[in-house]
Amino acid sequence: MRRNEEGRTLEMTTTLNENAANQDTEIPGLRVQLAQDEPVRLDCGVNLKDITVAYQTYGQLNENKSNAVLICHALTGDQFVAETHPMTGKPGWWSELVGSGKTIDTERYFVICSNILSGCMGTTGPKDINPETGKAWGLNFPVTTVADMVRVQARLIDHLGIDQLFAVLGGSMGGMQVLEWAAKYSERVFAAVPIATAARHSAQNIAFHEVGRQAIMADPDWCGGDYPSQDKHPHRGLAVARMAAHITYLSQSALHRKFGRKLQERDAISYGFDADFQVESYLRHQGITFVDRFDANSYLYTTRAMDYFDLGGDYEGVLANAFRGTQTRFCVFSFTSDWLFPTEGNREIVHALNAVAANVSFAEIESDKGHDAFLLKEPEFFRVLGGFLEGAAELRGLPK
Amino acid sequence: MRRNEEGRTLEMTTTLNENAANQDTEIPGLRVQLAQDEPVRLDCGVNLKDITVAYQTYGQLNENKSNAVLICHALTGDQFVAETHPMTGKPGWWSELVGSGKTIDTERYFVICSNILSGCMGTTGPKDINPETGKAWGLNFPVTTVADMVRVQARLIDHLGIDQLFAVLGGSMGGMQVLEWAAKYSERVFAAVPIATAARHSAQNIAFHEVGRQAIMADPDWCGGDYPSQDKHPHRGLAVARMAAHITYLSQSALHRKFGRKLQERDAISYGFDADFQVESYLRHQGITFVDRFDANSYLYTTRAMDYFDLGGDYEGVLANAFRGTQTRFCVFSFTSDWLFPTEGNREIVHALNAVAANVSFAEIESDKGHDAFLLKEPEFFRVLGGFLEGAAELRGLPK
Repeated sequence: MRRNEEGRTLEMTTTLNENAANQDTEIPGLRVQLAQDEPVRLDCGVNLKDITVAYQTYGQLNENKSNAVLICHALTGDQFVAETHPMTGKPGWWSELVGSGKTIDTERYFVICSNILSGCMGTTGPKDINPETGKAWGLNFPVTTVADMVRVQARLIDHLGIDQLFAVLGGSMGGMQVLEWAAKYSERVFAAVPIATAARHSAQNIAFHEVGRQAIMADPDWCGGDYPSQDKHPHRGLAVARMAAHITYLSQSALHRKFGRKLQERDAISYGFDADFQVESYLRHQGITFVDRFDANSYLYTTRAMDYFDLGGDYEGVLANAFRGTQTRFCVFSFTSDWLFPTEGNREIVHALNAVAANVSFAEIESDKGHDAFLLKEPEFFRVLGGFLEGAAELRGLPK
Repeated sequence: MRRNEEGRTLEMTTTLNENAANQDTEIPGLRVQLAQDEPVRLDCGVNLKDITVAYQTYGQLNENKSNAVLICHALTGDQFVAETHPMTGKPGWWSELVGSGKTIDTERYFVICSNILSGCMGTTGPKDINPETGKAWGLNFPVTTVADMVRVQARLIDHLGIDQLFAVLGGSMGGMQVLEWAAKYSERVFAAVPIATAARHSAQNIAFHEVGRQAIMADPDWCGGDYPSQDKHPHRGLAVARMAAHITYLSQSALHRKFGRKLQERDAISYGFDADFQVESYLRHQGITFVDRFDANSYLYTTRAMDYFDLGGDYEGVLANAFRGTQTRFCVFSFTSDWLFPTEGNREIVHALNAVAANVSFAEIESDKGHDAFLLKEPEFFRVLGGFLEGAAELRGLPK
């Protein structure tokens, strides 16, 4: 009996291995070819040409192009901010926040979100074909950084003919991109909203990423990163990576409140390795569904970009120097139960901004939902953000 | 270059795959065959006979057998408490605490520690031969609980002719065994010291265990648990499981203090997937060395036993009822930065003991070392524990 129950676990994984083929799916939406003449110089020294960027927009750009809001997505997010996701059929990841009449009102703002460089939702990344070899890049794709992601976004904003963004917002890795924008393209950012983030990735966070990467690399179907050429995909490794990461997105208390020790569709423990507990079943589900929409090499590249993020390091270790002379208005958010990007790391950003007398607000939002809170309907967060945007819009002279 | 660097990672793993053969190693030390006539009735309903128990002792049992101290080991611990480990060559896991003239003084106490049921250091477990089939048990080994571990320990104590233990001590899963001893064999425990533990496993901890199990089960060399018959071992999966778990043993601040963002034997990041950061190198080392001494199925069984632990559940959900009428003296310890077994869970134990007017002390030790603190030289912990044991020894009439 135990054997059978265990079998069920593997069966679930196997079934989804066969269904998962995200690399073959045509992802709908806007596309632009960038860096055709002038390559993007990446931090690693590579000059990357012919970059495809997949993006979505919501609302209308006004006449003087002053109402553009750039949203930067997180590690496993994508450009489908405020519409049904074409692969999962679920609502856009920030559709509670972004839309007609919502906090980020698409009647008022022109909202842009692009899939990051090295992503797997249409923007050039390791699963795409290297034009020089005619084969998928795999690990030959250059290792990209948060700064590189932002360089490519800046090209997109150029392409859209926008000189200055009204606001740049993002949580987690999206927040890192916001900081990068504010530091390196200060004059192009009127208002910046880094949420649940940090100016540098912590040792603990690097450690969790390394576990995820090792889980992927330990899967024989990873094939040294060459799986696209071999018609394989390290689904099991990627699912384990996602499960480990997912725990870090929730708080201890949220897990307790949501699941506690509740059993999954049974009255008593099974004395086996089936998912007896709801929390196990939930995690397995998170792992299994993730592989349907995400590419394993893209996961390696994107986690690596976060590990490498250390904004102060670009300014002789003095984070404040990243913001010296800035005219950008900042609003920094953290969530009390977020242990992945704790308040402390967000406060470091605020202190650096204070040290150069920047215009900065800081709100620590009371929530027991952990890091995930930035993706959820948190009324206080929405209220404070709405107030900040309202004030900034007035200053920018945007009509109501 | 990136490809080569990545190769190095896998090479490390492969090398150790070949070296690792803990299931074939003869583990030295004491052995006893128990349950030869009277099987142990396990929680899952199986009557288990012919159980081998591997154990070590330190010091001398006094004439009236009143100076015995049972130490219960944690998830990946073993019976080698206070001597060089025969496989790793490292000092015993509690050798700072246990020894001649130390806090648990082997000149005064007779210290016993046995490898747990379902372990892999000599006590019967899934890697052993099922006498009925002549093949390794694998997943046919009955799923055991913390209560089952203690049932087998109680048989060992019977075998040693000891009616009452002077003290039972243990941290983490060892602490769960202490609680089980104190609840089910109250009259046999003069003093009990549960350390950095909980009366029930939390949702977050079940979740982390499930990630580890899925990492093992995702490894094709796991072979549905049947790897011993196929001369394989899921080293890669087990290494990933260990890496994920290891992060939970340390605190965020300990990781920051120990590693921060320091690079490993290089001056700059490599733009690749090699272990650029010291914390990555450290974690990989933890994973790789673990597989040399631990059996993957044993890891599944032991994590499951912890998940299933819910002492109050045996007493209609009222933990206090587990201790009603107890004469045992308790000293409960927690560590401030332990987020795996936080103070809160230890305090629940204290509250339950208070509710039945038990004799209980509680010490929350200030430490930034996380859960690992219970294994390290923490002077305040040693001092308070020493004082408690001294007082209890006086009450028990043990000579200095």
